[in-house]
Amino acid sequence: MNTHFHAIIPAGGSGTRLWPLSRKASPKFLHDVLGTGRSLIQSTWDRVAPIVGDENVWVVTGQSHLEQVAEQLPEISPTKILAEPSPKDSAAAIGLATMLIAQEDPEAIVGSFSADHSITNVDEFRLVIDQACVAAETGDIVTVGIMPRNPATAYGYIETGELLGLDGAPTARRARAFAEKPAASTARKYVNSGRYRWNAGMFIAKASALLDVLATEDPTLFAGLSRIARAWGTESHEDTLAEVWPGLEKRAIDYVVAEPAAAAGRVIVIPGDFGWDDVGDFDSVARLRQPVPGEPRGVISIGGNCDLLEVDSSGVVFSEQPRTVAIVGLDDLVVVDTEDVLLITSRSHAQDVKKAVSLAGERGLDDLL
Amino acid sequence: MNTHFHAIIPAGGSGTRLWPLSRKASPKFLHDVLGTGRSLIQSTWDRVAPIVGDENVWVVTGQSHLEQVAEQLPEISPTKILAEPSPKDSAAAIGLATMLIAQEDPEAIVGSFSADHSITNVDEFRLVIDQACVAAETGDIVTVGIMPRNPATAYGYIETGELLGLDGAPTARRARAFAEKPAASTARKYVNSGRYRWNAGMFIAKASALLDVLATEDPTLFAGLSRIARAWGTESHEDTLAEVWPGLEKRAIDYVVAEPAAAAGRVIVIPGDFGWDDVGDFDSVARLRQPVPGEPRGVISIGGNCDLLEVDSSGVVFSEQPRTVAIVGLDDLVVVDTEDVLLITSRSHAQDVKKAVSLAGERGLDDLL
Repeated sequence: MNTHFHAIIPAGGSGTRLWPLSRKASPKFLHDVLGTGRSLIQSTWDRVAPIVGDENVWVVTGQSHLEQVAEQLPEISPTKILAEPSPKDSAAAIGLATMLIAQEDPEAIVGSFSADHSITNVDEFRLVIDQACVAAETGDIVTVGIMPRNPATAYGYIETGELLGLDGAPTARRARAFAEKPAASTARKYVNSGRYRWNAGMFIAKASALLDVLATEDPTLFAGLSRIARAWGTESHEDTLAEVWPGLEKRAIDYVVAEPAAAAGRVIVIPGDFGWDDVGDFDSVARLRQPVPGEPRGVISIGGNCDLLEVDSSGVVFSEQPRTVAIVGLDDLVVVDTEDVLLITSRSHAQDVKKAVSLAGERGLDDLL
Repeated sequence: MNTHFHAIIPAGGSGTRLWPLSRKASPKFLHDVLGTGRSLIQSTWDRVAPIVGDENVWVVTGQSHLEQVAEQLPEISPTKILAEPSPKDSAAAIGLATMLIAQEDPEAIVGSFSADHSITNVDEFRLVIDQACVAAETGDIVTVGIMPRNPATAYGYIETGELLGLDGAPTARRARAFAEKPAASTARKYVNSGRYRWNAGMFIAKASALLDVLATEDPTLFAGLSRIARAWGTESHEDTLAEVWPGLEKRAIDYVVAEPAAAAGRVIVIPGDFGWDDVGDFDSVARLRQPVPGEPRGVISIGGNCDLLEVDSSGVVFSEQPRTVAIVGLDDLVVVDTEDVLLITSRSHAQDVKKAVSLAGERGLDDLL
């Protein structure tokens, strides 16, 4: 284990497409969406802490989720849960954490791992991250490129280049470019070419290297974050945060760091194939929980609170209510049975759940959001 | 109004296909299944009482529903709600009521009207029943033949014969025969022939004529019912009921009275086309509540307890729970949201709801039945 390796877990975003399970006040990373017995952020901890060590895990989350995160992760030091006064996207979150880590350990390598993704093959994930950590010693920004399962249009892609032949990182390749979420025809070309990988938003780099890119590409954001980082934990902590944070620009780390670095030929990609999923909607959830092909179809119950009566049906039921759910003659159904909202949709309409959330907003049903 | 005309409303049957709205302890006739503001038995009262007069309406129901029926129909005299100690099918129910009516009024004409059917055009219904009442003066058994909307296999049919040219019943025809629920191909032949009508289970006859057929066709049932009727309201009422009722045979009035009478050329049919429906399943309910063709599709809320958030969907939601129901991308959906059971199905699987009820029974979930 590289003792300079630190993990940053950005835990933001409300997961609108997993509503009403995921809500503004209780986003998806706090939920056991997959019925594993651990919430998504707990599963992220379970994967990442053994790689970097408990003491080297940092979480960046909203002020309002601080308490729940601390409760769910009793092993983490409270000083390593960084609270954002308001959401400022990933460049601010990861930038600030990186600065605080670099202040403690100038030789640090940081890796950022989303709080709400799923990985089924953790051993393989670890091997990939080990390579990424070695590759980061070059001073380049390292990312992980996921083998596409299909020509998805919901993910960005990474175009991979030549093998670099690095010691300890035998599969590392140059990343030629990042590509935005493509149209379907472009996605098919990407996948057929064999050269494109999904961008899972994982970045591993020397803290100093990442901050160098940040300083060059967005000096204003860099300066603001530096002021906050210097004041962090001092008497002027609260005042500085209150003064500087609201004015920070909302930008994604992809735009501020990854893309400019790739354009400068300074991004390495480690190909990975470890059952990654962004758990973006109920279709993802159903796929991750569906019986293996060949087994009889059926309805999967998550949450365990309900008696299921199932007649010629398939799909998933999330139940927070102690009652019987009967499903008759419907396939690929998604049911979320909470105290104040019942959602019914199908796997193929999982992306449209956000439209119901918009409707709830328009109707002023703010308690439900 | 013919002051000798009495209506019998048999209110039995649990309506398994409308579960979990309709349950053993609370069958469908007690529910406002169609969201009209009146339960099905109340709507039956509303149609029938103006024809025969409040004093001439009789209800036959299970002992356990007596109280609820009396509550829902405050206008009815308690002595005219007849309680069956156990379900014995329609021949016993209608036979007993007819005997009690005949004891009061030997010249009575009785009409039996199910407690849980729906009729949209009440004016037309009344014109048909007026004809039926006139036709019953002939001493024949009169029934109503519903114009088929489609080659349904869920209903029995009546084969109609020649016009009878009766004064005051100009559309009355001879009924040639009753036909059981047919196979689909037979149903198509029936409908294409133009001669067949749905059997809605309405029988109108002189009490004496109906009892004559009953005495001839099932002397044992007739004798048992006669003993009970003679004891009714006397000191030996309870004892006689307890002694005789359990041994009565369960038979439908169709087999005991209507079919033998038709075979003897003694049934008259009045064709009717007044939006009759047996409200047999949620598909019926949805059809009866669906917007008129040409209007935008949508989800119809019945029960009025829920906020509906609807995205590209159609169907019906029955809500007894004060919460939001969001439906995304599903067509012809049926949702019943009760305190202890949530049912989700589609209109095309409405008939299969009874399978879920069977499952609940097999699992020993007796409280839900």
